Amino acid sequence: MEKLKEDARRIIQAALSAVDPQACVLRFLRREKYILWIREKPLDLRRIKRVFVVGFGKASAAMAQAVEEVLGERIEAGIVVTAEGNALPAKATEVREASHPIPDERGVLAAKAIRDLATKAEEDDLVLVLISGGGSALLPLPREEITLGDLQKVNDLLLRSGATIQEMNAVRKHLEVLKGGGLAKVAFPAQVISLILSDVPGDPLDVVASGPTVPDPSTYSQAIGILKAREIWEKVPDRVQKLLLRGEKGEIPETPKPGDPCFSRVENVLVGNGAMAAEAALEEGKKLGYPGLILTTSLQGEAREVGKVFASIAREMVKYGRPVGRPGMVVAAGETTVVVKGKGKGGRNQELALSAALEIEGLPLVLCAFSTDGKDGSTEAAGALLDGETALRIRAKGVDPEKALLENDSYHALEAAGDLIITGPTGTNVADLVFILSGKEG
Amino acid sequence: MEKLKEDARRIIQAALSAVDPQACVLRFLRREKYILWIREKPLDLRRIKRVFVVGFGKASAAMAQAVEEVLGERIEAGIVVTAEGNALPAKATEVREASHPIPDERGVLAAKAIRDLATKAEEDDLVLVLISGGGSALLPLPREEITLGDLQKVNDLLLRSGATIQEMNAVRKHLEVLKGGGLAKVAFPAQVISLILSDVPGDPLDVVASGPTVPDPSTYSQAIGILKAREIWEKVPDRVQKLLLRGEKGEIPETPKPGDPCFSRVENVLVGNGAMAAEAALEEGKKLGYPGLILTTSLQGEAREVGKVFASIAREMVKYGRPVGRPGMVVAAGETTVVVKGKGKGGRNQELALSAALEIEGLPLVLCAFSTDGKDGSTEAAGALLDGETALRIRAKGVDPEKALLENDSYHALEAAGDLIITGPTGTNVADLVFILSGKEG
Repeated sequence: MEKLKEDARRIIQAALSAVDPQACVLRFLRREKYILWIREKPLDLRRIKRVFVVGFGKASAAMAQAVEEVLGERIEAGIVVTAEGNALPAKATEVREASHPIPDERGVLAAKAIRDLATKAEEDDLVLVLISGGGSALLPLPREEITLGDLQKVNDLLLRSGATIQEMNAVRKHLEVLKGGGLAKVAFPAQVISLILSDVPGDPLDVVASGPTVPDPSTYSQAIGILKAREIWEKVPDRVQKLLLRGEKGEIPETPKPGDPCFSRVENVLVGNGAMAAEAALEEGKKLGYPGLILTTSLQGEAREVGKVFASIAREMVKYGRPVGRPGMVVAAGETTVVVKGKGKGGRNQELALSAALEIEGLPLVLCAFSTDGKDGSTEAAGALLDGETALRIRAKGVDPEKALLENDSYHALEAAGDLIITGPTGTNVADLVFILSGKEG
Repeated sequence: MEKLKEDARRIIQAALSAVDPQACVLRFLRREKYILWIREKPLDLRRIKRVFVVGFGKASAAMAQAVEEVLGERIEAGIVVTAEGNALPAKATEVREASHPIPDERGVLAAKAIRDLATKAEEDDLVLVLISGGGSALLPLPREEITLGDLQKVNDLLLRSGATIQEMNAVRKHLEVLKGGGLAKVAFPAQVISLILSDVPGDPLDVVASGPTVPDPSTYSQAIGILKAREIWEKVPDRVQKLLLRGEKGEIPETPKPGDPCFSRVENVLVGNGAMAAEAALEEGKKLGYPGLILTTSLQGEAREVGKVFASIAREMVKYGRPVGRPGMVVAAGETTVVVKGKGKGGRNQELALSAALEIEGLPLVLCAFSTDGKDGSTEAAGALLDGETALRIRAKGVDPEKALLENDSYHALEAAGDLIITGPTGTNVADLVFILSGKEG
């Protein structure tokens, strides 16, 4: 089992390296003298007057470092905002920190500074936008009609309701200035290139960080529908209700939709995502002697139930040698959800793992579920790496794993087993990764 | 899409044929003159005085027909009990019907007749026991201390609580006479051969039909724990609480445990299961041009969440051509659960399907989820066969699919789409089958 866990740790490392923000940026952005290559497309820097850099998300500081490596002295000014603990030194770019997942006043100030810089950019200027997961919470600029407190309240209600990230963002876009294409609107007519490190399964660019440079297909009416369906409409502040209802009636403008002229100057480039992490994990597993497959890169569902599905696959691997033989590996990337009912400490990956642990007792394999940003839920753990004896170890410490699961207290159960993965902030943020590694037969 | 659906229907048919109860029995039981071969083991019928046949479960009538085909005139007497609509004519064996999933008085009478026949059997007699899914509800012989009404009440509470079949059966075994090895106990010292068509993922023989001829590892104390964990202990009748508490204190005997002498005369033979159905589905899919894989044969989890996982796999098949390329197929067998919250009509397969339908809109594939017994939940449908336009068709009929899912009303939504699978009783009962069939690219 120790060998399996050691190999699992190497796989985690390989996956994280593949989605390192600097590596991702440098894969898509390079410079030959005065030509800046974005993917395969050249941009003549002699035609660009000033280059501005703005960014938001957990990986924005690291992405800024990579951009500085490429553009160096050409950067006129820059501001990026990242989550606490994710700041890294940069030269021409100012790096700020703000609160995540609940936005705070520092986030508002950063968002204002970013708005001002983008507004300053003119037609012959280039605005490089560095977008990564967490950007939604880190770029909170409430519309005039509402306050940061209102945003925080709505954000908190959405997080606890089990809303999907798509749903959360549809609401946010209609309460804030820069989301849902808002940044593209203020930067217009400058040229905008967004480098996007996606943390959303399936990489819908309008959803990552609430799509500040992407047309918004959602409407006021849908935002209201989501809050009602999640049964939190009655709980959101009056000012928020009023704003959304006015929007629904057409009294205030919608977010910019596809075809809006501001997008004619925008190019959105996906530089990294969960699929790349899953592919790197699979590749490393193969090297270590575990042939395998990728199940999905848009995993979703309630974490504890998804854990049961993974357990059923794990049992199949051991009992029948399928869908992959032994030794073997099954990998998935995505993001599960948790409807919080108890008062415990945990995160979606830890819940998935704890639930699976109860269903794979005694099996010769390990299961790993972790967040690539190093922070699962509100805990300081990234996730968990468990085996067929995890449940046993939890009980041996006097903790009831079933009860812990009911109480959303996966953290303490997995801590008791010694099965938490603690990485600290990784600097990147794509999807969560889940994989099973089964040992050889016998 | 029509071609995909047509192929899916062929795959369903192939899977059902592979687990046809007669085919399953005849695969494991054959006769050459006076030698009865059970698997590869010979039994000299000249040493057997009388042959009795007893059976319970949705497939018991069909299994009895196959046994009569093999043993014909050697059968002294027989009684099998099946669910309403599943009776088939037999010669030496009396075929009865009783209620499922909530047991009724007819079930009790049949169980008494089966107990009496087994009791009558002596050391040189053979009792052939035909066990199949649904047998738990069809063989209800309450202990003296409690009534059928009590059993019904507990059964109903368990079904609505989201309890797993393992949990339900651990409780039932401690409230009834024949379950949990009880039948082996009354048949002793006659020779007992049980032919088991398993409807339980992973085929734990002590769980199929609550294991009437299998040692019972569960205890009174665990039964109480399950009722408490599912938050229904306070709701079970007083008589049931009292019986279980007396058992926990050791005032009444436990169910027969491993090592009990009665099991020295018992052989349990697994003749069919969900894995065989999944393998047949995969084989037929391959013939029709859809290479694929079996994900698991012990699928579990809350139906609507499992549906989301299948949707995420479906998206991966279309977007990245993995875990299998296009055309391709992913198959799973197992049994999901539903925690009922709404007042609608539906079943676990229909809920899984409806949930998936909302997440695969527009994709060129079909997804099928059905119960091999032809009866999903309390509906007359076996399950559903849907495609990327199912959600659209539901909405076109004025039904809100999201709302239907919240109300546990999957039946009416899928009926509106014309996507229900109606087979009527199939005569067999192994696991549920879920598969995705993706068309070729372009």
